[in-house]
Amino acid sequence: MRMYDLIAKKRDGLSLTGEEIDFIIRGFTNGDIPDYQMSAFLMAVYLRGMTDEETARMTLAMAHSGDMVDLSGIEGVKADKHSTGGVGDKTTLVVAPVVASCGVKIAKMSGRGLGHTGGTVDKMESVPGCRTSLPSEEFIAQVNHIGISVVGQSGNLAPADKKMYALRDVTATIASVPLIASSIMSKKLAAGADCILLDVKTGNGAFMKTLDDSIALARAMVAIGTHNGRKVAALVTDMDTPLGHAVGNSLEVAESVQVLRGCGPADLTTVCRELASNLLMLAGKGTLEECRALFDEAISSGRAFETCKAMFAAQGGDVSVLEDGSFRKAKYSHVVRSPRGGWVCATNTEQIGIASVMLGAGRTRKEDPINFAAGIVLNKKAGDAVQPGEALATLYADDESLFDAAAQTFLAAYTFGDEAPVLPPLVMARVTESGVERF
Amino acid sequence: MRMYDLIAKKRDGLSLTGEEIDFIIRGFTNGDIPDYQMSAFLMAVYLRGMTDEETARMTLAMAHSGDMVDLSGIEGVKADKHSTGGVGDKTTLVVAPVVASCGVKIAKMSGRGLGHTGGTVDKMESVPGCRTSLPSEEFIAQVNHIGISVVGQSGNLAPADKKMYALRDVTATIASVPLIASSIMSKKLAAGADCILLDVKTGNGAFMKTLDDSIALARAMVAIGTHNGRKVAALVTDMDTPLGHAVGNSLEVAESVQVLRGCGPADLTTVCRELASNLLMLAGKGTLEECRALFDEAISSGRAFETCKAMFAAQGGDVSVLEDGSFRKAKYSHVVRSPRGGWVCATNTEQIGIASVMLGAGRTRKEDPINFAAGIVLNKKAGDAVQPGEALATLYADDESLFDAAAQTFLAAYTFGDEAPVLPPLVMARVTESGVERF
Repeated sequence: MRMYDLIAKKRDGLSLTGEEIDFIIRGFTNGDIPDYQMSAFLMAVYLRGMTDEETARMTLAMAHSGDMVDLSGIEGVKADKHSTGGVGDKTTLVVAPVVASCGVKIAKMSGRGLGHTGGTVDKMESVPGCRTSLPSEEFIAQVNHIGISVVGQSGNLAPADKKMYALRDVTATIASVPLIASSIMSKKLAAGADCILLDVKTGNGAFMKTLDDSIALARAMVAIGTHNGRKVAALVTDMDTPLGHAVGNSLEVAESVQVLRGCGPADLTTVCRELASNLLMLAGKGTLEECRALFDEAISSGRAFETCKAMFAAQGGDVSVLEDGSFRKAKYSHVVRSPRGGWVCATNTEQIGIASVMLGAGRTRKEDPINFAAGIVLNKKAGDAVQPGEALATLYADDESLFDAAAQTFLAAYTFGDEAPVLPPLVMARVTESGVERF
Repeated sequence: MRMYDLIAKKRDGLSLTGEEIDFIIRGFTNGDIPDYQMSAFLMAVYLRGMTDEETARMTLAMAHSGDMVDLSGIEGVKADKHSTGGVGDKTTLVVAPVVASCGVKIAKMSGRGLGHTGGTVDKMESVPGCRTSLPSEEFIAQVNHIGISVVGQSGNLAPADKKMYALRDVTATIASVPLIASSIMSKKLAAGADCILLDVKTGNGAFMKTLDDSIALARAMVAIGTHNGRKVAALVTDMDTPLGHAVGNSLEVAESVQVLRGCGPADLTTVCRELASNLLMLAGKGTLEECRALFDEAISSGRAFETCKAMFAAQGGDVSVLEDGSFRKAKYSHVVRSPRGGWVCATNTEQIGIASVMLGAGRTRKEDPINFAAGIVLNKKAGDAVQPGEALATLYADDESLFDAAAQTFLAAYTFGDEAPVLPPLVMARVTESGVERF
């Protein structure tokens, strides 16, 4: 088998066999196939696409390029969720404890934030003492004991993906549905869960800007998981607006606790409820309606919050901050006021994410430190009425000099109008093995 | 300017500006742009194409990446011809002397054979003593003195093309019209001629297998030359059948002499006549009919043959072999006979070329030596009637053990039938600045 011929085959729009795909992924990972051949292949995939079968096989080969996490030591159904990334997206901190509190095991690896989007691992680390890297035995034991552990990615998970992503990043081959889908799902397959619920964010704060693109990505990821014997579904959810009010690490943990206590913002609560109940359904806990009731009961009984605290406690976190909100506060705050009255018609959500990074809440390079207390609490979001001079948001930082530029960036994200805008539904589509429902 | 953005632009099917194209070619040539970005770009070009303007600019940038041959020391119009390569294609050895003998200067760089096709420089070197590498001053002086010099490519001509071709060769991006056209034309532009006649071979012995592809390539090359201020035309000529009867270096030189003496095979004579008269017309020597008459007169008067001999003599060649055909003969010959009677319906011309390489007449790697006496003389070509056992061809080699495999390969190239086949015209299309004529 020669890489040349496989490039030519994909270039001509033909489908590759499983053996051919394995050859490419294995050869590229071990260095037999040079970057310059792989980048030509990736451009051919970008422009010619891949069938579901090809994408599924490639994803499996990518997953098998490194460690496959062994969750066989955990009894019962193991569930995972994944978000394609958003601003104010703290759903894992709600969904995972809810699902675990309903008897479905969560043995989950999460990511860190990069660019304008945050990451669960960073948020968890804003709880003083919380470890997000556990020895494998401790991780497994914790899941068996309290039903849940969420840690950072460890080990050599899908090194083929890492190498392919680095090459795509410099050859303009990122934005391809089969390549994005295989990148995400290779790590999910390697992470070992039986049931995977995907949250594909769509809109101006998301990687996928349009509903159609987001549905295509969701469809591709569900197909990959299904082809490889996992139970997978996806919700396409709105990211034209930040989720909830808090953007920034400890601010978002506090807001998650509000949801777990039944007093969180409506939009965040709704999205968490839909994600959790879809994941519970995948895990065999009943119909969607029954699983929604499970969610409501897990919250109202306090069981989900107890599970959340148990997880943080097991990982060394000081749970008092969850109970009384006594996170370290940022030294300074700054209120951004509306320049006019009327309605907030829309917000550029990516810009809001960038403003929070400017305040210290995120990183622009992998090596950057994070200020867990920094961030933004929104008072007004798209669809809200506003008076001239009314507070749009409060910015938090430990360095007052950051406010000027961040406030400017933040305010530039807002569009005002004289009429209330029509907003999209929070959950815009649901994609399962059997098809796509749009809402 | 970032290569990433230019890859993305071409990936999305957009046109690049002249400055962007210059940036790519300059950056790739000097090593600033790595292979893995260039190969992604080349695949994007392969699948998205290029406009005539882009291709012309890229070709110019490629030409300027190295030495530009300075022909300003030569008086009068300088003409060049180029063939995309065929089997038995010795037209340069006829066309160049004819055109030079009509007062149009030929200061030409030719190539060597590779794979199943031969090259003019190898053929010239089969004339004992003939030098194909001359110091620049001697080259110019010879052209001024006797009107013609044909040498091998020297200097650092279009290094961008060399580097791009090497990358295309391993990334399945060879067969792209703008990339092939720019590769050929970059060297032609750098070689400095005012008028360029292109012979685009089409058929099973050519690089381009179909008439439409060949016309597309011809059109692209004519557009490149015209955009860059040269007078360019192209003939698309048949390569479903070897040209003439001789395949192999000294065998082909001897056959060229037959044409120059007015007693060459009809097909070869016709193609040479059309090529030469089109080139003479480009050089301003009259209408096509007038230029055909010029060709006939250059042959019948013996002037073209005299010019040919003068060129070889000036380059150190022993012209006695041209006059009396006293080339060194191969030690052995072997007659391949027809297994049946009827008609030769078709020949796989590439296979015939390969058979001649097997006999020692060509090279499969650049470093391989050539046996100038080896080759094939065809007795029967497509369209000829044949008796059972009649000679189809005579093979020549210095090693008898080569005949078995070569004869087998040669015979496998023949298709026989019970009816005379309908053959395509020798010249199938003519492409000029003003359009395409199909014949």
